[in-house]
Amino acid sequence: MPIYNAPLKDMDFILNDVFKADEFWQANENLAHVDMATANAILEEMAKFSKNVILDLNRSADEAGGAEFHQGEVKTPAGFKEAFKQFAEGGWVGLGASEEFGGQGMPKMLTVLADEMIWSTNPSFMLYPLLTVGAGMAINDRASQEQKETYLPKFYTGEWSGTMCLTEPHSGTDLGLIKTKAEPNADGSFNISGTKIFITSGEHDLSENIIHLVLAKTPNAPAGSRGISLFIVPKFNVNADGSIGEHNAVAAGSIEHKMGIKGSATCVMNFDGAKGFIVGKENEGLAAMFVMMNYERLSMGIQGIGAAEFAYQNAAQYATDRLQGRSATGVQSPEKPADSILVHGDVRRMLLNIRANNEASRAFAVYVGQQLDITKFSTDEEAVRKANDRVALLTPIAKAYLTDKALDSALEAQMCFGGHGYIREWGMEQCIRDLRISQIYEGTNGVQAIDLIGRKTTKCSGAFIAEYIADIREFAASMADSKVKAATIQVCNDVEGLTQFIVEQSKTAPDFSNAVAVDYLHAVGLLSFVYMFARISQAAASKPEPFYQNKLVLADYYVAKVLPDLAARAQRIKAGSALIMQLPEEYFTAQS
Amino acid sequence: MPIYNAPLKDMDFILNDVFKADEFWQANENLAHVDMATANAILEEMAKFSKNVILDLNRSADEAGGAEFHQGEVKTPAGFKEAFKQFAEGGWVGLGASEEFGGQGMPKMLTVLADEMIWSTNPSFMLYPLLTVGAGMAINDRASQEQKETYLPKFYTGEWSGTMCLTEPHSGTDLGLIKTKAEPNADGSFNISGTKIFITSGEHDLSENIIHLVLAKTPNAPAGSRGISLFIVPKFNVNADGSIGEHNAVAAGSIEHKMGIKGSATCVMNFDGAKGFIVGKENEGLAAMFVMMNYERLSMGIQGIGAAEFAYQNAAQYATDRLQGRSATGVQSPEKPADSILVHGDVRRMLLNIRANNEASRAFAVYVGQQLDITKFSTDEEAVRKANDRVALLTPIAKAYLTDKALDSALEAQMCFGGHGYIREWGMEQCIRDLRISQIYEGTNGVQAIDLIGRKTTKCSGAFIAEYIADIREFAASMADSKVKAATIQVCNDVEGLTQFIVEQSKTAPDFSNAVAVDYLHAVGLLSFVYMFARISQAAASKPEPFYQNKLVLADYYVAKVLPDLAARAQRIKAGSALIMQLPEEYFTAQS
Repeated sequence: MPIYNAPLKDMDFILNDVFKADEFWQANENLAHVDMATANAILEEMAKFSKNVILDLNRSADEAGGAEFHQGEVKTPAGFKEAFKQFAEGGWVGLGASEEFGGQGMPKMLTVLADEMIWSTNPSFMLYPLLTVGAGMAINDRASQEQKETYLPKFYTGEWSGTMCLTEPHSGTDLGLIKTKAEPNADGSFNISGTKIFITSGEHDLSENIIHLVLAKTPNAPAGSRGISLFIVPKFNVNADGSIGEHNAVAAGSIEHKMGIKGSATCVMNFDGAKGFIVGKENEGLAAMFVMMNYERLSMGIQGIGAAEFAYQNAAQYATDRLQGRSATGVQSPEKPADSILVHGDVRRMLLNIRANNEASRAFAVYVGQQLDITKFSTDEEAVRKANDRVALLTPIAKAYLTDKALDSALEAQMCFGGHGYIREWGMEQCIRDLRISQIYEGTNGVQAIDLIGRKTTKCSGAFIAEYIADIREFAASMADSKVKAATIQVCNDVEGLTQFIVEQSKTAPDFSNAVAVDYLHAVGLLSFVYMFARISQAAASKPEPFYQNKLVLADYYVAKVLPDLAARAQRIKAGSALIMQLPEEYFTAQS
Repeated sequence: MPIYNAPLKDMDFILNDVFKADEFWQANENLAHVDMATANAILEEMAKFSKNVILDLNRSADEAGGAEFHQGEVKTPAGFKEAFKQFAEGGWVGLGASEEFGGQGMPKMLTVLADEMIWSTNPSFMLYPLLTVGAGMAINDRASQEQKETYLPKFYTGEWSGTMCLTEPHSGTDLGLIKTKAEPNADGSFNISGTKIFITSGEHDLSENIIHLVLAKTPNAPAGSRGISLFIVPKFNVNADGSIGEHNAVAAGSIEHKMGIKGSATCVMNFDGAKGFIVGKENEGLAAMFVMMNYERLSMGIQGIGAAEFAYQNAAQYATDRLQGRSATGVQSPEKPADSILVHGDVRRMLLNIRANNEASRAFAVYVGQQLDITKFSTDEEAVRKANDRVALLTPIAKAYLTDKALDSALEAQMCFGGHGYIREWGMEQCIRDLRISQIYEGTNGVQAIDLIGRKTTKCSGAFIAEYIADIREFAASMADSKVKAATIQVCNDVEGLTQFIVEQSKTAPDFSNAVAVDYLHAVGLLSFVYMFARISQAAASKPEPFYQNKLVLADYYVAKVLPDLAARAQRIKAGSALIMQLPEEYFTAQS
């Protein structure tokens, strides 16, 4: 069976040494209730829960075929119900939620680390509370006080759960095309009718009520994305006293059969005049969605880290145990029939790639989490403005770059196992199948890249990235000379040049940026990760223990062996869009 | 349901225009029975069989869970038996086998194209005849005339089938560690005892007998890989008259539960004093394996092409049909609610990546097939020497580079579908799961890279690659000026420089080459593909029809957008091995 041990030491290092979390928390009155002792206690508890409760359920749920659908009802895999009860009773659903409504008020820079452990050990399980947390965030931000009081406390006890109902069969990325209708009733409620697909946790048996947040169009709403409103549609209507009433006219029509995350029920939801209540103002539904979008997209990046960490641990253990061949420099283990495959440079290359990306990814998630905490908790307007811009810029990196690197990592980890990696019992192939969705949902990684290069870059003429680069340069200037420092400065220059080129080209070629978007996303991802290694290096440099000194080696490895990808990305961006756009549409499907 | 239409026009173009197959065949008396008319007739028949008979069985076999194991017997998925009967009756098993034993004697440069279609439509099905073909090749090369007459004709009618039994639980890449024993009997036969794992088609219900080719060690054999012999071990003993006798002491103990190719039975085979017959000389078993290794490894590359072609066709169709968003240059389809996603550069980028790699891969497979045909059919000793060296050099590229690119392609194709790509019914996720094994089996792609950089490059001080580059330069010199010509010459220089660097470094650092092997493999892969585009361009340049002119655009696309990967590979190679080898083994599993 697969192994997992939470990387608590690295988590502590990142919070405490790299981001000096205690200072940051103590300096902010809204976060002064948190300190490293609390943080480590929380992480240690989650380390136990993830390893002891949900890890084994991950394989068993997949082997059993995942969630089951029968006559409108969904049965979650064996053990999920008990595990969720324990999870909810531990207060984990509301870990990052407002204390006013029963949450624990923990900062995002801490919760990203707790979340990582759940993503490592059972991604299907994680999706049940995740959507509740997202729905809670939208309600907390946009709903009325009465709505908040009705729904949020129930969310954070785990009694009720939430969903986000956006996608329709013909309308995914382009939400302007949705057809779900909201007809107003005399009492201020609406009747919601339409079909939503790909609804995570749309139906299940973990909670006694499910609160759907549904995008729909009111009569005479403007066409496209400006005419979308957001509604609360409970599975069971809620009585005035907060108790559960009659079943609303909403039901799951089926669940999807998927590549992975089989334990998570992905539902087709049919709304047939279901009673709904508007959240916030009419036609401002998309804006309400965007409130939680940055958090949700960061979560997908954490899914990536979780999977890649799990993959790494298992591959490193397998490589240590597996004896094949001898070292090219001479026999290392004469007492054994062969050396461990760790003597082979190619196996080490794969493991170091994974580890370097994981450690940078984890630091980056904490960094973005900290920026989100500034937007939420800081009272300094300029700091909030800057953090908002930073989050806007980096959310596509957190979502897409982290998951792209995570899939590369999981594939390399599987490869370390040779043929055994292809066999289900080792858990590597499930890890890949479960992880793959992270690149697709919450906006495909291509869509993330287009968001980065368009709304976040060309639209502001590169202002967000310029401010980011300025901060990185300032940090690099504070460092003692090293390869990582030199590389960081060089990459700042390179990405600055690429950004200027893109902003310039986009002025005359409207389809330029879309065609080079993914390459640009990866360029900014590389910049971000070398920046993380700069921060890691500075935090580790003065400490003599191998744990710290090895981080300097890993940083050098990153610069020497991973960062060269930037050269390829830059060449592709410079090659422009003409060759991509030139062939006629019929070329693509013409018989060859 | 997924679609598939064999790319017959491109296949004809590659054979006829790029490689001038008719001239080549007619110039060789051993191949003069083949011409383009025959070739196209064969390919058209296979196009029908693959589309009409086995395509639908691919999804149904996977959905049903694949091959089933019960009390030592394997039931292949519904429909496989009838399809295999039709396949065998069509003479497809022996398409490339010697006519002396009932084969059709077709050249490899043709059979690679027929094989591609089966890999596109049903990779699990393909694995049943594939192992028979491989076993037949080893028998044809090394066995006695009597053994050939006993087994080969039965293989090519499909009555009997074959396997290759190499791997053991503790012995995969390092075959020197095998423990299976062969005790000699007085009658010249041997008793074979041991356990083999990962035996493709080790047990099944498609043929009336299964002939296992088994690697085992005789008593007092030298240690390691020099003490391995090859044995024929029939499932049912064969009587003197060729009829089937008693069950031999060999049986499947179980089948593996895998990520993909579920329709293919991957067996644990237990040999319990089974009667076996030596093939060729004692202790020359590994050499006998290597006879067929180049063919088998090319087959894995073709598995890659097949999967990537299938993935491309489905993704291109989906992208044409799916309407989301509007073109950045203005509405393209005002009569529709949105434009097709083909207006977005990022979707085109993915499709063009796939198509460019597919067309180069297909040409490359034919090129390597032609080299194999020269080794087998030519009477010109120098031509045979040169082709043998070329095949030795390029087999790791054919196996590993083609499958690496194919997985990238299948992943990009899945991404074109957005969320729908993650849903089983579309067939994209199965394509990825089935394809993934091609990078792992027949020697992992890392092992291929080590073979390329070691035995095929540093061992001969770069002689093989030097001769290859000389040929490519000569070809480029014959071209009219173009971007592809310039790029081809540049890449020759780059790879020549990298090779010299590696040969030099390896002299003093024995673990250098292993650590940079995969990057070097990709560098040589890029060289090979730009060479293929040079040949494609020259064949297409003078023809005005869009089919040909679009190939020039695709070649330019390749140079501008795919080839930049070389810059990254070169930087990584130059960064060397020190950072990879420096950390102690315990670093990799130490708690972080």
